[in-house]
Amino acid sequence: MKINYELIKNSKNTNARYGKIETNYGTYETPMFMPVGTRATVKSLTPEELIGVHSGIILANTYHLWLRPGEDIVAKCGGLHKFMNYKGPILTDSGGFQVFSLAKNKQKDIQEEGVHFKSHIDGQNLLLTPEKSIAIQNKLDSDIAMSFDECPPASASYEYLKNSVERTIRWAKRGKAVHNNPNQALFGIVQGGPYEDLRKYSAIETVKLDFDGYSIGGVANDGESKEDMYKAIEYSIPYLPENKVRYLMGVGEPVDIIEGVIRGVDIFDCVLPTRIARHGQAFTRNGKINFHNAKYKEDTSKLEETCDCYTCQNYTKAYIRHLITTNETLGGRLLSIHNIRFLIKLTEELREAIKNDKILEYKEEFLTKYNKNSV
Amino acid sequence: MKINYELIKNSKNTNARYGKIETNYGTYETPMFMPVGTRATVKSLTPEELIGVHSGIILANTYHLWLRPGEDIVAKCGGLHKFMNYKGPILTDSGGFQVFSLAKNKQKDIQEEGVHFKSHIDGQNLLLTPEKSIAIQNKLDSDIAMSFDECPPASASYEYLKNSVERTIRWAKRGKAVHNNPNQALFGIVQGGPYEDLRKYSAIETVKLDFDGYSIGGVANDGESKEDMYKAIEYSIPYLPENKVRYLMGVGEPVDIIEGVIRGVDIFDCVLPTRIARHGQAFTRNGKINFHNAKYKEDTSKLEETCDCYTCQNYTKAYIRHLITTNETLGGRLLSIHNIRFLIKLTEELREAIKNDKILEYKEEFLTKYNKNSV
Repeated sequence: MKINYELIKNSKNTNARYGKIETNYGTYETPMFMPVGTRATVKSLTPEELIGVHSGIILANTYHLWLRPGEDIVAKCGGLHKFMNYKGPILTDSGGFQVFSLAKNKQKDIQEEGVHFKSHIDGQNLLLTPEKSIAIQNKLDSDIAMSFDECPPASASYEYLKNSVERTIRWAKRGKAVHNNPNQALFGIVQGGPYEDLRKYSAIETVKLDFDGYSIGGVANDGESKEDMYKAIEYSIPYLPENKVRYLMGVGEPVDIIEGVIRGVDIFDCVLPTRIARHGQAFTRNGKINFHNAKYKEDTSKLEETCDCYTCQNYTKAYIRHLITTNETLGGRLLSIHNIRFLIKLTEELREAIKNDKILEYKEEFLTKYNKNSV
Repeated sequence: MKINYELIKNSKNTNARYGKIETNYGTYETPMFMPVGTRATVKSLTPEELIGVHSGIILANTYHLWLRPGEDIVAKCGGLHKFMNYKGPILTDSGGFQVFSLAKNKQKDIQEEGVHFKSHIDGQNLLLTPEKSIAIQNKLDSDIAMSFDECPPASASYEYLKNSVERTIRWAKRGKAVHNNPNQALFGIVQGGPYEDLRKYSAIETVKLDFDGYSIGGVANDGESKEDMYKAIEYSIPYLPENKVRYLMGVGEPVDIIEGVIRGVDIFDCVLPTRIARHGQAFTRNGKINFHNAKYKEDTSKLEETCDCYTCQNYTKAYIRHLITTNETLGGRLLSIHNIRFLIKLTEELREAIKNDKILEYKEEFLTKYNKNSV
């Protein structure tokens, strides 16, 4: 099957919505947070640990898997699910974002056919096109594939973005034309920066192509303000169909997940929980904390007494700090488990709040506590 | 309780023996391999994963825990077991080996009172004495503590070793006199390099002090030949009591475990399985293999079809190679699980071989296969 989104309840006072998404690997509730498994591994964790923190869909990066080990090897191993042993649904991005952010020396040559760039690994000349991106994703055999889009920097001019949006729509068409995996859904991506008319145009034209779901892209760029991010969502959502799932790409700060949900987003992904974990940081209800801080040296309390994750059930702050300050990889692993669970639990609570028409009260309560002591 | 060793069966043709060791945390069969949790963590693994590979006793390093986080913090967290969440028995070494191998610039000043040296972390002046080592281990609250010994280099002269053995015996006496943890066993350590008379003297004098078990030390030094290692065991074992457990420190190559068992050793420990894992290497029945080798790129077979570990049950060689070559920490973790399981399984098979009086046949069969293709 492809995927099927069922809208169950619209929030009374906001655009927030509660729904369900049916996939090849089970049905999951939305709003949902997707952990990121860049190279077919959510850094340091096993699939069982992801299931343990109630993961649904996870994300893997087409660009990284194309370069290493190569999509043919993943296909030879039976596709992404068998390759990485994840028994839940997997979404792959298009590679577009990485081409623009990781290309060697940030040099790329954007042509109508696609993007010429040098590999960040060995400098090899590469060309990624809409057709190539879809062909790779077809072979990876993810449950949801993304259209190849241009991700312009936050500094791009209106004129540039206008042309870019047009090209991204032409690319989406070309990708859809060659997509040929009957078990894989294909999403379109809305671009247009912080401009209302461009977002509107991009959304309407992309929806005309009739995708299985829609993403809002170009919102997690370096230098973008939160206001521009929220505007981009607000300008896009009204033109997306109610009966299709909506995915905000690359967003994972708790406040942004809450603001995204309130504006009508169903799915989020971000490397943040695992990245900050490797740097010794953890999400808590009272804000982010940093285990390099000496105040945790003799702290025999749990990271969060109310958290149900493996880390909080079994370890003290003093032990986690010891692992982090001695560079033991178990430290980053324990914090990754907690941080992913934290964001997934946040979406669970947001779902409850939508069901009870308490989403604004929930936001107020959560953020008041969260922002008080955050580092 | 302290510990209790029960000798169940002596091998017919060799000194190998099968027995059981009763501890505060359950009874375990010997010969046994102990995984090493240097800083109160067996690198990258959780306690549940250790139980999953059938670990019994594990080892933690007194030197490392003394420096970070400090024994008082471990004690405040309820001792090593609670600190690291391991529900099996834990042995701590004395810190002696690390003082001699890790001291900054390899400089140390060995006096009768103890060893003056500089911390390898911050260059701080430190003094480790027999009394201090025992006091730290008492606070760590391991199940088995080791006497503080001098670990001379493999290049040490006979004259040097003679004096060193005498001093280690005096240190053992001093440590025993201050040991005061009623739930902790204390082992003596036999030294003496490759010299028959020194090993004999060291063993006899150490046994006179009546420890709960005996270690053979000074055998895993840089530059020591395998022949010297085997001699050191052969010269020590005859003078150790039958009713006490025997532990060969720092040894973990499969061939050395087999040769040690044949010579009458009950317990082994080594960082080898986790260290080679981080470098992309795995033990197999056909010898060590290296996942950096391109031949595993498209290898969809398991690491070892006959192995019951989590890694072999769930992943292909192609996936492990992908993780290793992209520096994903899950790669080292999966190989650590397999490598530890490999050595523990080896000791399980050695126990069966002793029970069936087939230990020499087992050695022949194992090593013929293992040595054929080893890297």
